Formats: sequence, C-alpha cells, structure tokens
Amino acid sequence: MSGTLIIVSAPSGTGKTTILRRVMSAVENLAFSVSHTTREPRKGEIDGTDYWFVDRPRFERMIDNGEFLEWAEVHDNYYGTALEPLRKKLDKGYDIVLDIDVQGAAIIRRESRLPAIHVFIAPPDLSELEKRLRGRGTEDEATIVKRLKNAAQELKSCDAYEYLVVNDRVENAAQVLSGIIYAERARSRKTMSGQDFVGSGS
Amino acid sequence: MSGTLIIVSAPSGTGKTTILRRVMSAVENLAFSVSHTTREPRKGEIDGTDYWFVDRPRFERMIDNGEFLEWAEVHDNYYGTALEPLRKKLDKGYDIVLDIDVQGAAIIRRESRLPAIHVFIAPPDLSELEKRLRGRGTEDEATIVKRLKNAAQELKSCDAYEYLVVNDRVENAAQVLSGIIYAERARSRKTMSGQDFVGSGS
Repeated sequence: MSGTLIIVSAPSGTGKTTILRRVMSAVENLAFSVSHTTREPRKGEIDGTDYWFVDRPRFERMIDNGEFLEWAEVHDNYYGTALEPLRKKLDKGYDIVLDIDVQGAAIIRRESRLPAIHVFIAPPDLSELEKRLRGRGTEDEATIVKRLKNAAQELKSCDAYEYLVVNDRVENAAQVLSGIIYAERARSRKTMSGQDFVGSGS
Repeated sequence: MSGTLIIVSAPSGTGKTTILRRVMSAVENLAFSVSHTTREPRKGEIDGTDYWFVDRPRFERMIDNGEFLEWAEVHDNYYGTALEPLRKKLDKGYDIVLDIDVQGAAIIRRESRLPAIHVFIAPPDLSELEKRLRGRGTEDEATIVKRLKNAAQELKSCDAYEYLVVNDRVENAAQVLSGIIYAERARSRKTMSGQDFVGSGS
C-alpha cells in the first residue's frame, strides 16, 4: 500500500508552520518532505532536517538529471523537492507532507503522476466575514455573495486546491488537516479493498 | 451553506453505535437522523429521540405521500427516514448522520439528490490480516492479495461506499469518521469559495 503526497500551501502569515507541526506530531505514518536549497544554512538549521544544503553546481546537475519533482529560483537561490526520497517513503506506506508555495504546487499538479491531494490554508477573514454577515441576517443573499466575492479575490489561488482549511483557530485547523489525511486514507483503503481485492464493483 | 448527509452502514457487531456516539459528541454542527417506525417502543426508548413511533396507517399514508427518503418493512414492522426533517436541518447547515443498513443506503444512493457521502464501517479482520501478512514479509504480493481477497468477500457490500473505516479500535475509528466529516466540510468550503464567490476556476 503506497502513500499519498499531502501538498499544503498558504499565504504567508496564515500560521501554516504551527498547524503542520501539530499535524506531524498527531498523525502516525506521516513524513515531512525536506527540500534541497542552495541558500546558506541559518543559525540552528540542520542539514537533512530543515533543508538539504547543496551548492549551485550540484543543484544544477540535479536539475539536468531530472531529479526534482519541482524546483524554483527565488532571490538568487534554488529551492527544490527531490523525487527519489519521496518515492522511497511513499513505497514504505508513508504519506508525505509538502510545505510548498502556489507555483510549486501547480508544477506538481501539472507534471507529477504521484498520488496527491492539495490543501490550501487560508486566513480566517473570509470565514469570519461570512459568519458575521449571515449571523446578523440583515443583508440579502446577493449582498452577502458580493461582499464575500471581493474578500475572496485575494484567495483566488485556492481554486486549484481540493481542500480549503480556514485557520480560525490553530487547534481547529490542525484537526481539519489531520481529518483530511485520515479521510484520504479511509478512501484509499476503500479503493484497495473494493477494486484490487474484491474485484470489479457495482 | 447547506449540510451533507453522512450515511453510515456496518455489519452488525462492528461497534457502530459506540463510534457514532463518540463522533456525535465530538463534532459540532452535527445532527442525528431519527427514523420513523411502526414497532412498539422498547423500555426506555423516547419518541422523537430513538425513533418517531407511528402506527401503520400513518406510516402507509406517509409512504403514499412520498414523505420518505427510504423505507423498508422488516419483521412485519416499517422503518423509514422522513425527508422533511432532514431538509430543514440541512438548510440550517447541519450535517446529518444516518445510521442505515446497506439496502437503505442503496436506495438513497439511487433515488436521492441530496448531497451525501457514504461510509462503511468494517470489522478489523481484514486490516489485521493485512498488517500481519505484510509485517512478517514472507509472503509474496500475489499470496497476500489472494488471502485478502478471500477475507474481503464478506465485506463486498462496501464496494458502493466512498469510505471504508476499519474499527480496529473505537477511538481510532471515531477519529477517522470525524476526520471524514471535517474533510468533507473543507471540501465543500472549497467548492463554495472557489465557484460561487471567486468565479470560474482554472
């Protein structure tokens, strides 16, 4: 039974790191994808834990060899996700969390055939706004929709994601993200027993 | 924002009732569907909580009026799920758990257009077996598949369900079922903001 990539993106300041830390410690059989980078290690960063730190020639050789699931150059430094370590962990049955920006996620969605789900973590504004608008019950539906539409513009990149987790409170958001992973497992388990083992379904 | 039906079926003896009780108390905005029946109330059962207790003429009038999402006659008694109370709760944004057998779930799947997900809770045998087989690493894949195939025969009715939750431990199963509900909400939220508010996606 092979694992799934859990691609997680969020606008900065959304609390993604805190949420991921909670989920990583709460959910079993979950691994975190460690990126390669050419930038200098910051104080306290550990090679192989925070990043794999490599030099530019090495990184460019890896690009040429097609070793990356996705990579990008940001502020004169390369960042990338190597394919092979992911494959190994997936084969062992781990689900792997990838903390990755919208562009990287788009590349993976377009080019990779690894099983993956895409989760977008959003700041609470939209949800808060909706709750407030509906709660007071004075605006009509058209007005509510219009207001939320404006607010949603900034979250437009979440369109391509299957799941939207709103970080109203870190505990809630972590619970939902964990839930998504559990649900995905319950779903693949179904596929497994339904198709591979029992034979063709109804 | 309208709710979703959470259709839950399980072979008897699977621990479904205990799991559902946990999930109902853990997850907010969740309601439980109360069935109608013509059987006599048992000691301690409360009308409107355990069942809606009605007489046969009343039940048959409801059938004729098309008031049931699904109904069946079992051991000379009618059992059924009335549509209107569900609609009202869904409109208020509640997700509604329906504890229902495989036949009832099939009728809903076929005839209802209400948003619904279908969850099958299975006894742990299959999962235990798989773990054991893979754990010792002596069988080849073909043998493992064959063994699991046999074991899975009895679970064949789960084919039509989107999710399979294996009740290895009640706490785990309850966590997974809660997770499925959270995930489903994160998914509809996505649909909502992605389609209704932001406009057409990519």
